[in-house]
Parts: sequence; structure tokens; C-alpha cells
Amino acid sequence: MASFKFFYDLMSPPSRALFIFFNKLQIRYEPVKIALRHSEQLTDDYRNNVHRLQKLPVIHHNNFKLSESVAILMYLKRESIIPETLLFPSDNRALARIDEYLEWTHNNIRMSGGMLFMLKWAMPFITQEIPPEKNVKQYEKMFKTNLDTFEYIWLESENFVTGNQITYADILAACDIEQTRIAGYNPTQDRPRLSDWLDKVKAETNPFFEEGHKYIYKYAEQYKGVPPIKSSL
Amino acid sequence: MASFKFFYDLMSPPSRALFIFFNKLQIRYEPVKIALRHSEQLTDDYRNNVHRLQKLPVIHHNNFKLSESVAILMYLKRESIIPETLLFPSDNRALARIDEYLEWTHNNIRMSGGMLFMLKWAMPFITQEIPPEKNVKQYEKMFKTNLDTFEYIWLESENFVTGNQITYADILAACDIEQTRIAGYNPTQDRPRLSDWLDKVKAETNPFFEEGHKYIYKYAEQYKGVPPIKSSL
Repeated sequence: MASFKFFYDLMSPPSRALFIFFNKLQIRYEPVKIALRHSEQLTDDYRNNVHRLQKLPVIHHNNFKLSESVAILMYLKRESIIPETLLFPSDNRALARIDEYLEWTHNNIRMSGGMLFMLKWAMPFITQEIPPEKNVKQYEKMFKTNLDTFEYIWLESENFVTGNQITYADILAACDIEQTRIAGYNPTQDRPRLSDWLDKVKAETNPFFEEGHKYIYKYAEQYKGVPPIKSSL
Repeated sequence: MASFKFFYDLMSPPSRALFIFFNKLQIRYEPVKIALRHSEQLTDDYRNNVHRLQKLPVIHHNNFKLSESVAILMYLKRESIIPETLLFPSDNRALARIDEYLEWTHNNIRMSGGMLFMLKWAMPFITQEIPPEKNVKQYEKMFKTNLDTFEYIWLESENFVTGNQITYADILAACDIEQTRIAGYNPTQDRPRLSDWLDKVKAETNPFFEEGHKYIYKYAEQYKGVPPIKSSL
């Protein structure tokens, strides 16, 4: 029997990361799909019954309601629902590198990649207005700088964030980075090292990585980076 | 003997939080002051010998170099250098609430408060140029919304982030919030609940809270929110 409910939307990078992680490790959960595109997380019902901060992903476990992907992983580990595995190591320095990456990324890769996605695709989808080119370029530039840092500092001469073993830091990073394809950005172009790393993350987590990204890849192909508005202004 | 080196600047909120935390718990460290105002973290020497990401705070422990305040706390806890205490509880749900807050704050209180400080004070100090009023107002508005969320959702009817016991989440939050005084912002104005909470955080952590904020309070008084440029443009 599933021990916890998992509220998610595959259009949210941290939701996708947990989806891939749970399935790869065969951790059982009761899935509850929430549609961000219909702002289902902004209803009173969601605030009162799912999570007070009105975000995704969320878990409910023994009447405890928790948001934020990393907080969720750490909580489930301490509850022994997530076992110690190569994806979730116990070595102190490996854990510290993961924590360091996950703190660092918030205002770097996650923020710039997320803003690129929001401006170029999600906001036009909702408002039906084309975003100012200047703003898109600003976040594209930031994202490019952050990818440089990821490729040349985080990956250095190693295969994964913590060395030669994939961990959940790599899954979270890959989900944030792949999100930008929907904004017409190709994060692996002219980046052989990043491209190799992404191939390795996919090889270690498929078929769940592809399953988790099915909408991203579908919409990236369908819209080819053109903002999804019905008529050009 | 101190078991680790601590590189910090009291002008950085997470540096200040660790300074207060370590001193309150009488954890011994070898202090190394780094001056952000002189961009000391941007030198080749810093990148090669202190930390590859050129950020603060950083610790060196047994030849291991680590940045990001929360990663540092978790690492030192696993090394048994930080004991289990009320400030750093072992209860699983309390820890999950702390983690949830610390993830949430990155793109909320920390980002908007940090940008307010940067635009209104740090950048003018460095560039000697007055910031665009529009940009300052934008982050002021975001910070106000985030303070509302902190006051009415995070603190709800409780004294601290996790309930009735101060933890390091409160210290980190207080350091981020107090930073904005230097931008001429008074975060406790018309906020009796936030004001009570801040008084409690200070009561539990003084004299270290005041010591950690000595420059913030000094510059807030000296400049009264006026950008620190030598001549008006």
C-alpha cells in the first residue's frame, strides 16, 4: 500500500524530479495530478486541504502536509521510506556537495531557466501576450552563464555533481535544464560535456526520465520556441 | 582547538546567521574575515584557495571546502561538530518545516530582501550611481508580499517557524529580514506579530544577534536609506 499521497504536475521541474526519483527507486505513492495550467493550486480548496503555500510538489503523509522537493526527500529519508542508495548516498561529503548544489541552484540555474520558461512560454500561454524580447534575452544570458558554471565548475572533470555516481542532485539539475527546451533553447548545443552528462542521467533513470519529460518534449517539438498565442499581435 | 576555518563577512546574511549560530552554541572555529566591499571573494587566490564558487560563507574542515550556509550546518551536524539542540532539533517534522522554509525563502524573502539591499545600498556604494526608483519599488513590493506570507502563513498562530521553539530557520530568516533596514526599510512597522517574533529571536540569541548586526544597524542609522554616493547626480 502506498504510504503517502504525491501531488504533482509534470510541467513543474521539482515535481518531475520527484516523479523520476520515486519511480526509479520503486517507491510507492498515491498519485494526485494537479493542473498548474488551470491554476488548480490557487483555489481555496487547495490552500485549505492540500498545502497552505499553494505550491507543488506536495506530499501528505500521516496527516503531515509538506512542500518543497528537497524537504520532501529529506523527510522521507528520515522516515525510512526512501532507502540509502547510490541516488541518495550516506557519505557525508557527497551529501554536502548535493546540499551545496541544491542551495546554489535556486538563484542560478533554477531561477534563470525557470524565468526563461515562464516568459517565453507559460505566461504567453496564460495571458496570450508576447513577452518583451529584452526580458527574454536577459534571462537567456543569465541562464547561459549559469550553464557555464554548471559545466565547468560543478561537473569539473567528473561525471556527476558529486563525482562518479549519479545522485538526486543530478536529477533535479537535469529537470531544471531540460525545461528550457520548451522556450526554444537547446541547453546541450556546443556543450559536449553537458550533453554527455545529460545522456548519462537519462541512461540511469529511463524510462522514467522520458516519461517525466513527455510534455516538455512534446510541446518543445510542437511550438519550437514560438510563444503559444493564438494570434500574433 | 577550533576544528574548522570559517570564512565570513558580517554584511552577508547567511554569514551573519552562522556567526550567531556558532557563537550561541559555543562552537569553536577559526575566523577568517573576507571583505565583500573590496570584492575579496572575486580574486584568483580566493577561487583557488578558498572556494571555487567564490561565495561566502565557506568552511574548511579536514581539507574539505564547503559553501552555502545550510549545506554547512547539515555537514557539521553529521560530523557531530554541531550537537542536537533546541536550535537544531532532531524531530522529523520540525526538521521538515525548517527545510521547507529554507527552500521556500530562496526566491522569496531572501531574493526580494537581498535585491532591495543590493539596489538601494550595495550597488550605489560600489558604482556611485543612484538606482532606478522603479526597480527599487518593484523589489520593495515583492518583499512586502513575502513578509505578509512570513507573518501570516509561516508564523501562523505560533511563536517561531516550527512552533514554539526557536531553530536556525528563525535565525536565518531574521538575518535576511534585518538586512533591509540598511535600504531604509523598517520590516517591523505595522507588523506587531513580526515585531514580537524578532524580539524573541533576539532575546534567544543575544548578545550575538546584536554583534552580528553591528554594521547593519550602524549603516542603517548613518545613511537612513539614502544611497551611499558621494555626490548627487
